[in-house]
Amino acid sequence: MLQMERFYAERVGDMKGSDIRDAFKLTEAADVISFAGGFPAVDAFPVSLIETVMDDLFRCDYTGLQYGPTEGLEELRRQVAVMMDAENIPSDVDNILITNGSQQALDLIAKIFLDPKDYVLVEQPGYIGGLNAIGNYQGQMVGIPLDDDGLRIDILANKLKEMSNKGRHPKFLYTVPNFQNPTGVTLSLERRRGLLELAREYDFLILEDNPYGRISFGQEPLPHLKTLDTEGRVIYLGSFSKILIPGARVGWAVGLPGVIRQLSIAKQGTDLCSSSLGMKLVLDCIMSGELDGHIDSLKVLYRRRRDIMLESLGRYMPAEVRWTHPEGGFFVWLRLPSYIDSRALLPFALEEEKVAYVGGKGFHVDGSGHNTIRLAYSQAPESDIAEGIRRLAKVLRRQIESAI
Amino acid sequence: MLQMERFYAERVGDMKGSDIRDAFKLTEAADVISFAGGFPAVDAFPVSLIETVMDDLFRCDYTGLQYGPTEGLEELRRQVAVMMDAENIPSDVDNILITNGSQQALDLIAKIFLDPKDYVLVEQPGYIGGLNAIGNYQGQMVGIPLDDDGLRIDILANKLKEMSNKGRHPKFLYTVPNFQNPTGVTLSLERRRGLLELAREYDFLILEDNPYGRISFGQEPLPHLKTLDTEGRVIYLGSFSKILIPGARVGWAVGLPGVIRQLSIAKQGTDLCSSSLGMKLVLDCIMSGELDGHIDSLKVLYRRRRDIMLESLGRYMPAEVRWTHPEGGFFVWLRLPSYIDSRALLPFALEEEKVAYVGGKGFHVDGSGHNTIRLAYSQAPESDIAEGIRRLAKVLRRQIESAI
Repeated sequence: MLQMERFYAERVGDMKGSDIRDAFKLTEAADVISFAGGFPAVDAFPVSLIETVMDDLFRCDYTGLQYGPTEGLEELRRQVAVMMDAENIPSDVDNILITNGSQQALDLIAKIFLDPKDYVLVEQPGYIGGLNAIGNYQGQMVGIPLDDDGLRIDILANKLKEMSNKGRHPKFLYTVPNFQNPTGVTLSLERRRGLLELAREYDFLILEDNPYGRISFGQEPLPHLKTLDTEGRVIYLGSFSKILIPGARVGWAVGLPGVIRQLSIAKQGTDLCSSSLGMKLVLDCIMSGELDGHIDSLKVLYRRRRDIMLESLGRYMPAEVRWTHPEGGFFVWLRLPSYIDSRALLPFALEEEKVAYVGGKGFHVDGSGHNTIRLAYSQAPESDIAEGIRRLAKVLRRQIESAI
Repeated sequence: MLQMERFYAERVGDMKGSDIRDAFKLTEAADVISFAGGFPAVDAFPVSLIETVMDDLFRCDYTGLQYGPTEGLEELRRQVAVMMDAENIPSDVDNILITNGSQQALDLIAKIFLDPKDYVLVEQPGYIGGLNAIGNYQGQMVGIPLDDDGLRIDILANKLKEMSNKGRHPKFLYTVPNFQNPTGVTLSLERRRGLLELAREYDFLILEDNPYGRISFGQEPLPHLKTLDTEGRVIYLGSFSKILIPGARVGWAVGLPGVIRQLSIAKQGTDLCSSSLGMKLVLDCIMSGELDGHIDSLKVLYRRRRDIMLESLGRYMPAEVRWTHPEGGFFVWLRLPSYIDSRALLPFALEEEKVAYVGGKGFHVDGSGHNTIRLAYSQAPESDIAEGIRRLAKVLRRQIESAI
C-alpha cells in the first residue's frame, strides 16, 4: 500500500488529536465512572419536547429534509437574533451565521483570519477544540494564564507590550469568559473592560466563545464582551449543544455583517450548509416557548452535580490538591503537586480504580500543565460523582505518598 | 465600525462565493422555473419512511441527541462499509469516515493535503464546490477538459509531462466520474484504467467523488476508480444527499486507515463530530431495508425528467446550441455560440422569461466558459420542464438573432 506521508500538507504537523475525543473512546466501558468528556447529561435532554416537535416537523413543509441556505435557516437566524437582543447584544439576521456547533465557527474564523505563523492570544489552560482549530491553520499561539477571575489582564498587557516591541501583532484573542472550559472560572467585569481596552490599543479582534453562559448557578450574568464592544471588534459564539442537545450540531456566530458574509463564503466551500434537520428541530424547540423553562431545569440539575463534586473533593482529596469553584458550566480544574503527571496516571486510574478524567496538559500551548486535571461533573450520573471522586482521590493519594 | 480587511488571511483572496448557492437565493421567487440548484426533487424524499423511522428514533437510546464519535457512529460506518463492499470496494469500518455531506470530505482532504500553491488537477468544467474547497486552501488548479466520455486522458497525459518537465507535481486529481456535475458525462472504462496508470506514473492521488453514481438510467455501472485501485491511491467519496435526503448532511469518505485517521484528526478541530441526529436517521433508514427500493424509484423519477428535458431541448433550442446526453444524475450541459455570455444574460432570463439556470463560467478555473450553461432537471416540477426550456430557448434565440 501507498505511503501517504509525502502527500500531506505542512499543517498536518500542527494537527493534534484531542485528549478529550480520545478519552471519549477510553471511557465507554460500563464500569468506569467518567469525568472525562464534557458532555451534557443524558437526563438533561428534553426528550418529550423533542418528540413532540419531531412529530410535527414536516407538517408545514419539508425544510428539514432539503439543502438549506449556507448562512442557516432564515427564521432560525431571526430567532437567534432575538435571543441575542435579549442578552444585550443588539442583532439582526445579517449579524448571525448558523454553524455545525460552535466548533465549526472556531474553524471558519481561523480559516478566514489566520495565515501560517499569525499570532493568536489564547487562555492557558484553554479550550482544546479552540486550540486545535487555531493550530490546524498554523496559528502561533501565545498562552496567557488565568486565576479565579479569569484571564490575567495584567500579564496580557505586559505580553502585548513585549510582542509589540518585537513587531508581533496578534490577529485575535480567543476566550471562554463564562465558566471557562477547562477551569470553570469566569472573567470579572473589570477585566472584561480592561480586555476591550487592550484590544483597541493593540488593534486585535476578540473571539468570545460562550457555550456555558446560560448554565449559571445563581449570580447575575456579567455583560458579554460583545455587549461592551462598540466597534464590532468582538465575534461572539453561542451554541445549543449545552442548553438543548448536541446531536443537532447547531451553534452560531454573531458579528459585523461583512464578517458574517465572509464566514459564510468560507462555509460554502466547507460543507455547503448545516443540517436542515437539526436547524428545523432547534427552531421548532425555540418556537415551542419551552426553552427558557428547560434551561432553568438544567441549572438545577448541573448545580446539584457541581455541589456534590465540590463537597466530595473537600472530603476525599489530599491536602496537596487544589481546585476551582465554578459558578456555572460543566468543569472543575485540579492542580496536583508538580511531581505528578496526570496523563501518565490515567491508564492506572482507569484500570485499577475505574475512574476517568482528562489530563490537563493538552489545554496548554507551552507544554506545561502535566500536573493538572479537568473534571466534568456534567455527564456522570449524580449518584456516581462522590464515589468517582473517592476513587480519584485514592489514586492521587497513593501517588503523593509514594513520591514523599 | 471596524474595517476588517486588514485582519483577513491571504486565502480569503482565493475564496469564491458560489454561483450555485447565490442562484439558490435568486430563484426562490414562486413564478420562476428554476434549473439552477442541483437539489433533489422534493417528491424524491421518502417522507413516510422517514416519519416511521423518526417515530422510533429514541426507542433504544438517545444516540441521536448526544455528541457522537468524530469518525461517525460506528454502526453507520459498518453499514456504509457493507454498501461499499457490495459495489466492489472492499471496506472495513476503519476505511470509512462519516462527513457532513461529501462537501466536508472535500474540505478535509484539501485541508490535510494542500499547502498554498500545491498543484491539483481538476475537471474543466468541474464541480464548483470541489473547486471552492481546493481554492480555500490556495491549491493551484490545473483544468483538464472533458468530452462525452469524460476527462480527456490524452490531454491529461500531455499536461502531466509538461508539468513534470517544469518540476511541478500535482498532489491529487479531483474527478466526478459518473454523471458529472456540471456536464452529466461519464468517464469511460478505458479512461478509468488510463487515469490510474497516469496516477501511478506521475505519483498523484485521485479523489473520486460519486454523489450521483446510483442514479443511473439504465446501463450497467462502470467499476469505480477505487475498485480498480490496488494501491490505496484513490480516496472515494459517497453521499446520502441524492439517494435519501440532503437535510441530514451525511456523506462519507473511503480510504486507507491512515488517511481516514488523519482526516478524522482534522475533523476534530473542524466540528468535533457530525450530527448524531442525521447519522441515526440515515442509519435507521438503511436498517429498514427500504433504501434500495427507494433508489429504484428515484431512477424512474429522474429519468423521466431527463427525458422531458432532452426532448424539449430538441424541440425548442436554436440550431446553434449544443448539449450533453446524461445517462444518469441531475445535469445537462449547454454550449452556446461564443458571442453569448450566459451569466450576463441571467438577470434578463429571470426578469423577462422567469427561467433560471447557472452560468457555466464558475465551473472553469481558467476564466473560460462564459458561453456555457448548467441545467438541473432534478428539482423543477416535471410539468414545468418543457415550459422552462421553451422560455430559455426564447431568451437564447433572441440573443443569437440580435448578434447576427
